[in-house]
Amino acid sequence: MTTSTHEHYAIDQPSSARRIMGHIEALAGPDHTSSVAAIRRYAYTSEYRRTIDYFAAAFRELGYDVWEDPLGTFVARNRPAGTPAFGLGSHCDSNRNGGKYDGTLGVVVALEVCTLAAELGLDLPLQVVSFLEEEGSGFGLMLLGSRIVAGDVTERELREVTAIDDGESLWTHAERAGHQPERWRECARVLDDLSGWLELHIEQGRVLQDTGGRIGLVEAIAGYVHADLTFTGRADHAGATPMGWRADAGLAAAETALEAERLAQRAGEGTVATVGRLELDPGLINVVPGRAWMTLDCRSPHQESFEGVARDLERYARRRAELRSLDLAWEERVTVPATQLDAQLVDRLDHSACASGTSPLRMISGAAHDTMYVAPRIPSAMVFVPCEDGISHSPQESADPRDAALGAEIMLNAIVAST
Amino acid sequence: MTTSTHEHYAIDQPSSARRIMGHIEALAGPDHTSSVAAIRRYAYTSEYRRTIDYFAAAFRELGYDVWEDPLGTFVARNRPAGTPAFGLGSHCDSNRNGGKYDGTLGVVVALEVCTLAAELGLDLPLQVVSFLEEEGSGFGLMLLGSRIVAGDVTERELREVTAIDDGESLWTHAERAGHQPERWRECARVLDDLSGWLELHIEQGRVLQDTGGRIGLVEAIAGYVHADLTFTGRADHAGATPMGWRADAGLAAAETALEAERLAQRAGEGTVATVGRLELDPGLINVVPGRAWMTLDCRSPHQESFEGVARDLERYARRRAELRSLDLAWEERVTVPATQLDAQLVDRLDHSACASGTSPLRMISGAAHDTMYVAPRIPSAMVFVPCEDGISHSPQESADPRDAALGAEIMLNAIVAST
Repeated sequence: MTTSTHEHYAIDQPSSARRIMGHIEALAGPDHTSSVAAIRRYAYTSEYRRTIDYFAAAFRELGYDVWEDPLGTFVARNRPAGTPAFGLGSHCDSNRNGGKYDGTLGVVVALEVCTLAAELGLDLPLQVVSFLEEEGSGFGLMLLGSRIVAGDVTERELREVTAIDDGESLWTHAERAGHQPERWRECARVLDDLSGWLELHIEQGRVLQDTGGRIGLVEAIAGYVHADLTFTGRADHAGATPMGWRADAGLAAAETALEAERLAQRAGEGTVATVGRLELDPGLINVVPGRAWMTLDCRSPHQESFEGVARDLERYARRRAELRSLDLAWEERVTVPATQLDAQLVDRLDHSACASGTSPLRMISGAAHDTMYVAPRIPSAMVFVPCEDGISHSPQESADPRDAALGAEIMLNAIVAST
Repeated sequence: MTTSTHEHYAIDQPSSARRIMGHIEALAGPDHTSSVAAIRRYAYTSEYRRTIDYFAAAFRELGYDVWEDPLGTFVARNRPAGTPAFGLGSHCDSNRNGGKYDGTLGVVVALEVCTLAAELGLDLPLQVVSFLEEEGSGFGLMLLGSRIVAGDVTERELREVTAIDDGESLWTHAERAGHQPERWRECARVLDDLSGWLELHIEQGRVLQDTGGRIGLVEAIAGYVHADLTFTGRADHAGATPMGWRADAGLAAAETALEAERLAQRAGEGTVATVGRLELDPGLINVVPGRAWMTLDCRSPHQESFEGVARDLERYARRRAELRSLDLAWEERVTVPATQLDAQLVDRLDHSACASGTSPLRMISGAAHDTMYVAPRIPSAMVFVPCEDGISHSPQESADPRDAALGAEIMLNAIVAST
């Protein structure tokens, strides 16, 4: 089976799936997690070290050079520096109560693509990257490795941020692990010679599963705004305060949560808005809430959509607060821009997928990924595979290695078409 | 100044206010609370014992017989058992973080009425009661003393309920304090010879303060339903789950909280509904809430109103849960019937208030009071005085002793008119 421009390589998917699952299970073993109940693996821990060593050994066996950048992002490469290579990878740290697949599957599939290329005798120029601390569970900074590589970080931040578990600085942890954090600016070189970038990841949603899809092709990664809203009214006795005399902070929060849903639905095009946390103070059955604290998570692949929803919602919340005699504090935590992925590369993946006999689903990623920080410099795309019931960040995380093997075949062919 | 049927006694209100404040301050002293930051006084503690002893000494000085019922409700009486007397009083336990006025002011004003009657040479037949554990802060059972007196309790409950602070049973605590809990059925005798009942209390709301009123006359005590609602949906990634794919438990809770407000407003006539507690699970900014737990407090002086609101709200919540693919568990904690107070006695208080030169406000009590358990047997009414900003159950509680003195004058005259 061929596309218009190149031969299509059909791999032995069952054998590939077995290899992928072998790595996944090996990396879920007791040497690679600090918890028995879940995968828990942060940068600069011995379980993280052993995980990087595992990949390093596997890539060395394929004849790749392996190294780590000054902070610890792992690189394996089969071409000398200064010559182009096609990049692929993900991360192999986990969140606090994680599963076997989030991130790690992307590095394992990258290894599988390199293994397949070798097996097929394809002399593809490849570079695999496993970014440091994507989950941010060790130090509270999400996407840390890719942000450092993108230069979207300050030295002060790196010196000051401390580990959640022991309060010691990232800087100290990095030094003690044998890295050279003072050379952090050199981390940017990781992307220097890449001609393209692909990351495979579990979907973390239920769209693929519920539509029977095996492969999602990500056209854009949603940008988002995170904000904290605090309504302040007056705590009153629930029995002794007539309805018209109240300044109930909880009801304005309820109205705002519902308006967030309405605005996101109206915006459409992949825009979502979520109120994930809502607390009332004093939080007693017989006291009118004097204070309500809620979070907003609003995302869209279209910058103007999530920014518009957030803007309209703030206006709405202020109006409701005024009508209910409340104060409103609206504090934005962070705004992350939307990332458009490379249309040509997505098309190439689409052709490969069709050639592999599957109908890929064009998707947007609502979740953040390291690829967000790669895409501004390198033509990039992402491949999603289904995960059971959309569950991630949980030991219940589950994915089918056969989908991952299909993903490896599609990525391999797209890389062939790109190089 | 006279009413149509009897002379009106005008007391020396400033002197009465000073006496009232003297008692209030004495009972806020270190001998009468286990906390320095608030009033904290539960049954069977040494600070409670000293408080009862304080009242006992004051009533003995007036020539009253004093005793405690088998569980510890305090009684002072100036007539032998078997002859009618007019009852008045409240409670002198506090909540965990209480103020000087809630309950205690009612017993102090009862003492003041007895003192005034003696000063004026009126040989009124009077009985003062200070009910045990109205706040329920010692053992978690609200209105305990009056419930026991009303027989609305089981021996098993009394034997099994334990102190929040040390886990020992109420039964043991009562015995150790010299009471005879096995004789609890005899507590009902406290009400045997009463011809009427009056309780003065701080309003615990802001209606009197905000309307410039000094005296509220309570025509009914609201009944209420307390319920817990749990919506269960599905916790999903806030980025990776499109709006149409969600089963967001938090949004159904938000809709239900707003519907509770709407239904209470529509019911009118003093009906109130409050969602005082609302929690989302897992409660993270970037996770669609899979579970929402909320409380409902719905009250009205009209039984059919609060029951109707609760019924309509349950129907609404079930409909919303169905539309959002959620499960709903609706668990009723307790339903307390509404209590109508004695119209004639309220009228007598109204006449007295007018004769004292004040315009009383006819009110309903949204808060529960011991009088709820007295009213079914004895013609009863309540007098409210303002408290600053409606604050109660707090060390910030504040009331004006001049309003309490005015209340004492009004109560005295209403009793004269009743006996």
